[in-house]
Amino acid sequence: MKITAVIMAGGRGERFWPKSRNSCPKQFLSLTSDGETMIQKTVKRLLPLVDMNDIYIVTNAAYKTLVTDQLPDIPEENILSEPAARNTAPCIAFAAAVINRKYDDAVMMVLPSDHLIGLEDIYINTLKKAADVAAKNSSLVTIGITPEYPETGYGYINFGAENENGAYTVERFVEKPDLATAEKYLASGKYLWNSGMFVWKLSTILENIRSFMPDIYEGAVKIGEAFGTPQFNEVLVREFTAFRSESVDFGIMEKAENICTIPGSFGWDDVGSWLAVERINKTDADKNYISGDVISVESSHTTVCGGKRLIAAVGLEDIIIVDTDDAVLVCSKNNTQDVKKVIAQLREQGRNELV
Amino acid sequence: MKITAVIMAGGRGERFWPKSRNSCPKQFLSLTSDGETMIQKTVKRLLPLVDMNDIYIVTNAAYKTLVTDQLPDIPEENILSEPAARNTAPCIAFAAAVINRKYDDAVMMVLPSDHLIGLEDIYINTLKKAADVAAKNSSLVTIGITPEYPETGYGYINFGAENENGAYTVERFVEKPDLATAEKYLASGKYLWNSGMFVWKLSTILENIRSFMPDIYEGAVKIGEAFGTPQFNEVLVREFTAFRSESVDFGIMEKAENICTIPGSFGWDDVGSWLAVERINKTDADKNYISGDVISVESSHTTVCGGKRLIAAVGLEDIIIVDTDDAVLVCSKNNTQDVKKVIAQLREQGRNELV
Repeated sequence: MKITAVIMAGGRGERFWPKSRNSCPKQFLSLTSDGETMIQKTVKRLLPLVDMNDIYIVTNAAYKTLVTDQLPDIPEENILSEPAARNTAPCIAFAAAVINRKYDDAVMMVLPSDHLIGLEDIYINTLKKAADVAAKNSSLVTIGITPEYPETGYGYINFGAENENGAYTVERFVEKPDLATAEKYLASGKYLWNSGMFVWKLSTILENIRSFMPDIYEGAVKIGEAFGTPQFNEVLVREFTAFRSESVDFGIMEKAENICTIPGSFGWDDVGSWLAVERINKTDADKNYISGDVISVESSHTTVCGGKRLIAAVGLEDIIIVDTDDAVLVCSKNNTQDVKKVIAQLREQGRNELV
Repeated sequence: MKITAVIMAGGRGERFWPKSRNSCPKQFLSLTSDGETMIQKTVKRLLPLVDMNDIYIVTNAAYKTLVTDQLPDIPEENILSEPAARNTAPCIAFAAAVINRKYDDAVMMVLPSDHLIGLEDIYINTLKKAADVAAKNSSLVTIGITPEYPETGYGYINFGAENENGAYTVERFVEKPDLATAEKYLASGKYLWNSGMFVWKLSTILENIRSFMPDIYEGAVKIGEAFGTPQFNEVLVREFTAFRSESVDFGIMEKAENICTIPGSFGWDDVGSWLAVERINKTDADKNYISGDVISVESSHTTVCGGKRLIAAVGLEDIIIVDTDDAVLVCSKNNTQDVKKVIAQLREQGRNELV
């Protein structure tokens, strides 16, 4: 069965300020020393499994140029521009309706655009297995990540018995736990991290959208019907902006039957904050990650992402420095989530050019 | 007796990199929120005691423009440009020989250009007392600072009995002590900090220069004789560059007789490193000193000297950030002395534009 991929690239990635901005969010940045952006890596690692012509990018209309610039080999009609941000369920419905015009039925893999994968062969094999299960069993397959520690920043998947083909039934999805609960999950051996990667047939997901979000289904069908016609943009704007905001987790996964998960252990990293930079790059003998024009004296466990100017890091420990032309962030590693507070203050001050 | 002042302004102030550069050292920077530079403050606070026409600035020839720009009211002939850096003894000999051409004899106060004084009335009264003692007793008077804690970064003055006029005999000058020694000094009540401020008559200092540094005396006399003639610059360059490098402490004060000290308690601060900025400026409720375009989130005891760009300080404690157009320093408060290592690395790399 034909395998297609939908890469969701509408996020704003505020935790990577000041490098990420509204005008260029995380998925369009390079956070690794090879210079490739997150979305370029996402597409590249799929190519052993999915034809370039079957890779779709769903993104905010404002980012279409970034996508075409960074991914010139993706056919233009595969770049699906959302006229408004409506979370993942409308995004997936839109993509499913469009792809359904091209293929009678096909496997549709839904993947984030801003994660990293260390072991790409295992990743591809896991996706293949998921596609097989999705095709054979008409199930909604989610890729669960084998947890390594009691992370409180992710949702978890509670899985049950093993089906055929190495998939496990999903008992329930649970929200981000507190630390004690996360520790229990980890100890139980019955939980996986929810990575936000889904694999299903077009027919399966469309059927589920129709069942659980009939309003969105109706709009998506109209968008799909208009695809390729002169009215497409008009219909898209009208129908899509009318969608309510809904996540696929809440709108479908927590309600649907026949959900299974395939555990993956392929060096997944969600690159969730500036803390990730030292994980995903090579650090020096003092555990510093340093890029750009930097002089480091007596510093350790420190991340410096330089810009055009010299940065001198003297006597620092567990500090993150990110320099850009118009803003520099100096942040304790314990406070990477507080970067959002900076953005909130900038918004309050009406300084949108810096957001 | 006429009172003159010689302000020594040849230093390079490397500890204030990246704001201080070879091209604009500390004495020409403003480190306080009023915008006045250190040398402007130094001159201004002297005016209740010394006529502007009797204030002399000795500086490196390269800084003459900075002096005339920042101190337009100082007569140009009072700006004495050293053709080379030769430490304080040749600097003082040069100034004494020049001023000796104008006045038969006069009190000469030698003062650093880059210190701050909190209590200026007491400062002026202390200098007045020192001038009286120097005039009456033909002694070399040094201003000692009443120590507040066992500082290991200053030299100390061991004083003896009180003379008339509130001056104390100097037993000896001692180098920067280790902490245990500094603690002993402080506990003994017989030590003052050596502030590098000296008061003496021209006749007294010239006599002492002749006794202890006859070579420098000879050259200084020639420079003084040439002052105001067309040959001055030629003579100055020849004689001054031939001087050996010598400090007044080692060259004269540690050898001379009839030295006394007057203790001063006038809120002296040598502004010795970036640590000083929070001492000499008002801090906020979280003990931060912040200037420029800065957003601070969950930071405390942190100093941010902003430049043209936004600085976001997130979750920091005891960190110093200094931004300039071409370099930014992020430094732990424990490592302010290591800023010199940054400069050393820049020199090694031949990046003199940043030094």
